[in-house]
Amino acid sequence: MEYRIEKDTMGEVKVPATAYYGAQTQRSIENFKIAQDINRMPKEIIRAFAYLKKAAAITNFDAGVLSKEKCDLIGRVCDEILDGKLDDEFPLVVWQTGSGTQSNMNVNEVIAYRGHVLNGGKLTDKEKVLHPNDDVNKSQSSNDTFPTAMHIAAYTILNELTLPAIENLKNTLVAKAKAFMSIVKIGRTHFMDATPLTLGQEFSGYASQLEHGIKAIKNTLPHLSELALGGTAVGTGINTPPGYSINVAQNIAKLTGFPFQTAENKFESLAAHDAIVEAHGALKTVAVSLMKIANDIRMLSSGPRSGIGEIHIPDNEPGSSIMPGKVNPTQCEALTMIAAQVMGNDVAISIGGATGQFELNVFKPVMIYNFLHSARLIGDGCNSFNEKCAKGIEPILDNIKKHVDNSLMLVTALNTKIGYYKAAEIAQKAHKENTTLKEMAVKLGYVTPEQFDEWVIPKDMVGKI
Amino acid sequence: MEYRIEKDTMGEVKVPATAYYGAQTQRSIENFKIAQDINRMPKEIIRAFAYLKKAAAITNFDAGVLSKEKCDLIGRVCDEILDGKLDDEFPLVVWQTGSGTQSNMNVNEVIAYRGHVLNGGKLTDKEKVLHPNDDVNKSQSSNDTFPTAMHIAAYTILNELTLPAIENLKNTLVAKAKAFMSIVKIGRTHFMDATPLTLGQEFSGYASQLEHGIKAIKNTLPHLSELALGGTAVGTGINTPPGYSINVAQNIAKLTGFPFQTAENKFESLAAHDAIVEAHGALKTVAVSLMKIANDIRMLSSGPRSGIGEIHIPDNEPGSSIMPGKVNPTQCEALTMIAAQVMGNDVAISIGGATGQFELNVFKPVMIYNFLHSARLIGDGCNSFNEKCAKGIEPILDNIKKHVDNSLMLVTALNTKIGYYKAAEIAQKAHKENTTLKEMAVKLGYVTPEQFDEWVIPKDMVGKI
Amino acid sequence: MEYRIEKDTMGEVKVPATAYYGAQTQRSIENFKIAQDINRMPKEIIRAFAYLKKAAAITNFDAGVLSKEKCDLIGRVCDEILDGKLDDEFPLVVWQTGSGTQSNMNVNEVIAYRGHVLNGGKLTDKEKVLHPNDDVNKSQSSNDTFPTAMHIAAYTILNELTLPAIENLKNTLVAKAKAFMSIVKIGRTHFMDATPLTLGQEFSGYASQLEHGIKAIKNTLPHLSELALGGTAVGTGINTPPGYSINVAQNIAKLTGFPFQTAENKFESLAAHDAIVEAHGALKTVAVSLMKIANDIRMLSSGPRSGIGEIHIPDNEPGSSIMPGKVNPTQCEALTMIAAQVMGNDVAISIGGATGQFELNVFKPVMIYNFLHSARLIGDGCNSFNEKCAKGIEPILDNIKKHVDNSLMLVTALNTKIGYYKAAEIAQKAHKENTTLKEMAVKLGYVTPEQFDEWVIPKDMVGKI
Amino acid sequence: MEYRIEKDTMGEVKVPATAYYGAQTQRSIENFKIAQDINRMPKEIIRAFAYLKKAAAITNFDAGVLSKEKCDLIGRVCDEILDGKLDDEFPLVVWQTGSGTQSNMNVNEVIAYRGHVLNGGKLTDKEKVLHPNDDVNKSQSSNDTFPTAMHIAAYTILNELTLPAIENLKNTLVAKAKAFMSIVKIGRTHFMDATPLTLGQEFSGYASQLEHGIKAIKNTLPHLSELALGGTAVGTGINTPPGYSINVAQNIAKLTGFPFQTAENKFESLAAHDAIVEAHGALKTVAVSLMKIANDIRMLSSGPRSGIGEIHIPDNEPGSSIMPGKVNPTQCEALTMIAAQVMGNDVAISIGGATGQFELNVFKPVMIYNFLHSARLIGDGCNSFNEKCAKGIEPILDNIKKHVDNSLMLVTALNTKIGYYKAAEIAQKAHKENTTLKEMAVKLGYVTPEQFDEWVIPKDMVGKI
Repeated sequence: MEYRIEKDTMGEVKVPATAYYGAQTQRSIENFKIAQDINRMPKEIIRAFAYLKKAAAITNFDAGVLSKEKCDLIGRVCDEILDGKLDDEFPLVVWQTGSGTQSNMNVNEVIAYRGHVLNGGKLTDKEKVLHPNDDVNKSQSSNDTFPTAMHIAAYTILNELTLPAIENLKNTLVAKAKAFMSIVKIGRTHFMDATPLTLGQEFSGYASQLEHGIKAIKNTLPHLSELALGGTAVGTGINTPPGYSINVAQNIAKLTGFPFQTAENKFESLAAHDAIVEAHGALKTVAVSLMKIANDIRMLSSGPRSGIGEIHIPDNEPGSSIMPGKVNPTQCEALTMIAAQVMGNDVAISIGGATGQFELNVFKPVMIYNFLHSARLIGDGCNSFNEKCAKGIEPILDNIKKHVDNSLMLVTALNTKIGYYKAAEIAQKAHKENTTLKEMAVKLGYVTPEQFDEWVIPKDMVGKI
Repeated sequence: MEYRIEKDTMGEVKVPATAYYGAQTQRSIENFKIAQDINRMPKEIIRAFAYLKKAAAITNFDAGVLSKEKCDLIGRVCDEILDGKLDDEFPLVVWQTGSGTQSNMNVNEVIAYRGHVLNGGKLTDKEKVLHPNDDVNKSQSSNDTFPTAMHIAAYTILNELTLPAIENLKNTLVAKAKAFMSIVKIGRTHFMDATPLTLGQEFSGYASQLEHGIKAIKNTLPHLSELALGGTAVGTGINTPPGYSINVAQNIAKLTGFPFQTAENKFESLAAHDAIVEAHGALKTVAVSLMKIANDIRMLSSGPRSGIGEIHIPDNEPGSSIMPGKVNPTQCEALTMIAAQVMGNDVAISIGGATGQFELNVFKPVMIYNFLHSARLIGDGCNSFNEKCAKGIEPILDNIKKHVDNSLMLVTALNTKIGYYKAAEIAQKAHKENTTLKEMAVKLGYVTPEQFDEWVIPKDMVGKI
Repeated sequence: MEYRIEKDTMGEVKVPATAYYGAQTQRSIENFKIAQDINRMPKEIIRAFAYLKKAAAITNFDAGVLSKEKCDLIGRVCDEILDGKLDDEFPLVVWQTGSGTQSNMNVNEVIAYRGHVLNGGKLTDKEKVLHPNDDVNKSQSSNDTFPTAMHIAAYTILNELTLPAIENLKNTLVAKAKAFMSIVKIGRTHFMDATPLTLGQEFSGYASQLEHGIKAIKNTLPHLSELALGGTAVGTGINTPPGYSINVAQNIAKLTGFPFQTAENKFESLAAHDAIVEAHGALKTVAVSLMKIANDIRMLSSGPRSGIGEIHIPDNEPGSSIMPGKVNPTQCEALTMIAAQVMGNDVAISIGGATGQFELNVFKPVMIYNFLHSARLIGDGCNSFNEKCAKGIEPILDNIKKHVDNSLMLVTALNTKIGYYKAAEIAQKAHKENTTLKEMAVKLGYVTPEQFDEWVIPKDMVGKI
Repeated sequence: MEYRIEKDTMGEVKVPATAYYGAQTQRSIENFKIAQDINRMPKEIIRAFAYLKKAAAITNFDAGVLSKEKCDLIGRVCDEILDGKLDDEFPLVVWQTGSGTQSNMNVNEVIAYRGHVLNGGKLTDKEKVLHPNDDVNKSQSSNDTFPTAMHIAAYTILNELTLPAIENLKNTLVAKAKAFMSIVKIGRTHFMDATPLTLGQEFSGYASQLEHGIKAIKNTLPHLSELALGGTAVGTGINTPPGYSINVAQNIAKLTGFPFQTAENKFESLAAHDAIVEAHGALKTVAVSLMKIANDIRMLSSGPRSGIGEIHIPDNEPGSSIMPGKVNPTQCEALTMIAAQVMGNDVAISIGGATGQFELNVFKPVMIYNFLHSARLIGDGCNSFNEKCAKGIEPILDNIKKHVDNSLMLVTALNTKIGYYKAAEIAQKAHKENTTLKEMAVKLGYVTPEQFDEWVIPKDMVGKI
């Protein structure tokens, strides 16, 4: 490979000749040979930095501390980053400095050097039209830019992917709940036969879980909308022009279309990332919901002949490499694996969040990496599950009817007529002697056949639907 | 010990002669010999059940399905429970049936039998004036009462203990932030010397964390205010009179003084406890904050001679059994241990929440046990830390001044004057040659002594305070 | 209450007149009002301290630094503690100083003052025959005693409770595996019908899990057998007589009957508790196994009419307060809740273990509290599950036969005869047209009826049993 | 893109014309659009499958159920996979079916079709020389191949990367411990000044932690060495020739060079992955150790002027984008982030491990994904930390001496001379009046200056070194 020489405050470094990044990015590549093939800094962070750097340039220009020319040049490179044209220029991994300094510098270098080239310069020019620190990073520190990028990326993915995906799945479940609302089926508590409900009621519970989950996530957005930018090195805002923090947040809001605002307290914003912890707590709550829902659906569809078998889910692929004709609830499996992952990610995030020291939390990359992973998985997972499984769920009416008709727990309808103890006696004896409830109820002399038929009607036991 | 014979639907059971509880409680004692000396069902749950049973009786009476006499009798026993007079009657442990059925029956039995005695009867009477199932549990199921008790207990402890305790600590931190607002000190990022800030600014970050934490908890209260009661066995409300669910929630609200309301979807309320997962996620966020804060405070107070030593915390007790005169940051240690516990509890709760099946989650006791544990620990822990540590924090001005005056990072003030690279050169050489910044800055010819004194003023580097 | 005055190095403290503990214990009660009713320092730690203090006294006597009289007196009080006679004298909670200093001093004080009384003195005597620090704590520090007590308590509970309980359950599962070895049943993968196995084979898998789990725990015992004692304040062994660390470990081994030995590196022993983390990792592995096993058993026993229903488990108690005659898998529920708790405890322990600083880990109490909780829960839980559930498991042969006879996956036996693709076609069409496999296989012309009967024999599909 | 048509048991699928994979891989790509750019099935699993398929072919050939020609062809493609020549042919993600069936089929298809091409055929040939199911997957099921690949991959990465990397770091720490063994420094407990030890002793504790961690990992290898292969669909070994399971394990051992053996109980091997849970528990223990070690090192190196400053670590890169000349402990930060990640991964693995059902655990991909992630991160992380940080650690003797000389805790040496209480008085008064210990000791009349000098010698307080 061909190289050129770049310099930073520590000296000279050999950089690939055509790379737009410079010395500090290269040092990081060499110093952190950790999972480089699998754990690049998430692309959502790079995009967030592009918004941030453009907004900072505009704000600096408005404040009179950056020339129009430099501001425009910075903006042009940021637009290229947002268009995905410079993806290969961001090779750094999550496992670097805990402030994300090296990724901030990676962005600064790429903007400066690519800007220089856009301006007609060459990568080998000693002096470049933009300086990574003095121009691109003007009025900024890694310590306030990286947490700002974290919030931009987190807020954006939740709104653009995760929330709509959960919403989509919820809508499908609501539609299924409506469609299945009068299909009376056996209830199961403790995995044991219980009083009946309708299949629609069962699905309405799933929908309600996701509805609450959406609210839970939305409750955390205001904290995420607070931006650290303007705090610079330790939260005091050293080296920023007047009004900078408010203005730059407004510019980010304008560019992204989301209601970002400057954080009231920048010391918190640099030293703690409770907003990430809090918001991921909500994501984890949704993961918990999804585990329950997907698990239920896989069990409801179990069989085809020796399971529960009350619903049918789409057959998407051959299920077994050895058992011919087998079809499995694979979307449920993917979704429950995702739930397990998100629950693990939550712990990594909490530990990272708890372990900041003094003016800076240095677990920033690991926190946002896990956050974005979870948001992505829940988003993609809900979309996949929705399209490839939930939408195609259909009841298997024969099995549903067979189960409810057999149930001994229909006896519960007799509690208010003959008391709990006698009702229990009927159920226990019917179970032991393998009779129907009615046979045993009459045999024990507690009700007449007519009373039984009048009082024990499954569809009257499901409440108002 | 003397015994009497009690009966349930499975037959006879020997019960301690003077115990107010009956057969099912006794069965549970014998069937679940698991950590009986350390893991009783939390008292907050028993209290919540007392409110619940009283409200149910009133609602049943209003609906015409329970006599005035029985209603009053139930209410009287509930009041005794709330007064703590029957504490020993609730011996069951967390590790029982996952629906909490046995604790519900424990409460039903104690109310029925104690009510019978209050009414002039004897424990050995065959027929009692109140029946545990048919009267005390009327219009109820364990499946809706236990989750209702969970929400009552959780909502109550958060409002009565946890939130006020966090608020108290926050207020102390706000007061300290004000008192220390003009004490300029060195900042530390990456645990390394950084640009200055004031001690008050540092503390304002802690206060802001807790302020956000309080909001996070409050955001989860609406979901917790939804009550399952009225869903009975599977969520359909079988065996309840018309209007029951709405009315009983109102009665609980009246008795407790908290804005409880009936859950819109009872199927969720029985089968999932996402509200507990969500609310505990907020508690865990506060635990994460407390870990950071207590850790900082212990490090800031470290020394007395070979640590950071910038604040003094109260000396509450001798710190060492071997090192005479040693004093340790013990309140910080208790609080950080609590934070670790809460982070662990969060996982137990999430796993429990994720593992419900069909119409019922059967991890109810373990979920609420951990929730109440965390709420209690954070509440007691914040109060203890506040009273015994935070209120007594004082700055150690000599050390603070020495540290800030020595700092090489004051050079940051020169960035906007001479550029980042030259400023870096000054700092690096001053470090290497062990000189002051000023000496090196002048020696390198980048600034005059006068310029240095004009530009590098720590108290001008902390922003607007 | 009446009080007496006690003194420590910080001054005078009012102590309950009859309490054997002194000033430092009292300070801790007042300074740590945190969950005092529910989170006392585990009794296993107090017992471990009794062994430790007795062993230390003997070792000190042997080294010539403690008189015979004092040594004997200390030993007598330790024996009283081990006999449970002084249980009320240890009121301190887990949430104290992170080194456990206050519990060490609690023990020192009780031994000194109770010893003084045994010696004929009064609690109000100014000078006592034993001094808590200079005699009882001689050659010790909280920093080495508490971690030693942790290891003694952990090692002991694993060997006395946890391992035997897992072993008992494993033995029952082995016995069930043998008893059920020729009962051919349907297999289920992905919760879907699969090729057959025997019920005994299924149970042999559970037994094998526990067998491996026992090995996993035993693998961690050597690290737990290493004792910190002799490291004193920071690991250097300051203020100990020659040979002390080796001798005191031998004395502890003699007193407890377990092969304790002095840790090779005391700096690790004070500053890190990886042995606790490691051993709890094994406990967590067992919890994971138990979750799987208990979950399977609850699902296999589900029904009685609309579930899987292949085994019957004992009916221990009425299962529902509203549904008469219902019986639930309550032991499975207790055990799975325990598993969830242990998985949460593991996180608390890991965070505690990771957060030590320099020469001391100050999360000792929270670590051992969670460890002992898990060890206790798994021990008691396995015993309860074994006695009240596992031993009583019986197959329900009718259901088992019905399920296996119906299975479409018996077609797998044809793979090696007619190939995977044709076999798949048979299964898919039989499923679609709701026929038996044989009917469809013959109809499609892939086999003759005779071939089918010869090739597809469930009991020949389960391998060597 | 150009396509060809492939078929599986469900019908026709369009596949990229030049892809070696077939219908089932393509279905999975389309059905699981979940994080496809970031979460491919780990390459270690693909490599493990290559060993497995080659060993299976050899074993099948030896058993007389596969022709020599087919066996060789399969082996040739496996070698290509091992050489990394077919990396792009494995596009599937972790979030697929929980048995990993689709990745098994992906491998089967690639081997079959690439083998056909190697044999002179064309991808568009209707009949191919190798059949994915009937030949490549012969005597196998996804249900036994995937867990076998998990164990091969886990065992291999631990032995080839993780253990050697921990060993390397440990060796460096041992070397540092030796080099620093006589440098007396202040001890710190509770982050407070304590009695002295040597810097070498401090480092020996770190080394001892890793030494124990290595043992802990090695203890888990035997369980990992057990292979599921031969269990096929549900553990019974249906459709395998006699002796297959033992022989195929031997062939895998031969090919990989590791002591793999067939699992004694295949039902466990398919339905549970406790070996993965157990081994990751050991990895997590090491993560806990690394968190402590890296945290200590970052704190010991803190400053340069206002921190602890007792060691110097290498300056690898500029530390701040705004503070010129700042250098940060970035390797410590990467390593502690890794520790947090591993602790989170542990939870994901445990949840996955606990949630298997009946004959199959369907969290296989998420479990091995997290396992390999952790093993990789600890391996790469230790190597990076070792090379870029640990090897370059040097003491800062001036600071070390200043701290130890100042320490009040040297007073501990007087305990055995004048008693704990008087010693405490000296330390407390010296602290309050800001004098040296000696001045105060003499002033209080407890010792003569000569006695003090004789008794209080830091280097005599560190024990035998």
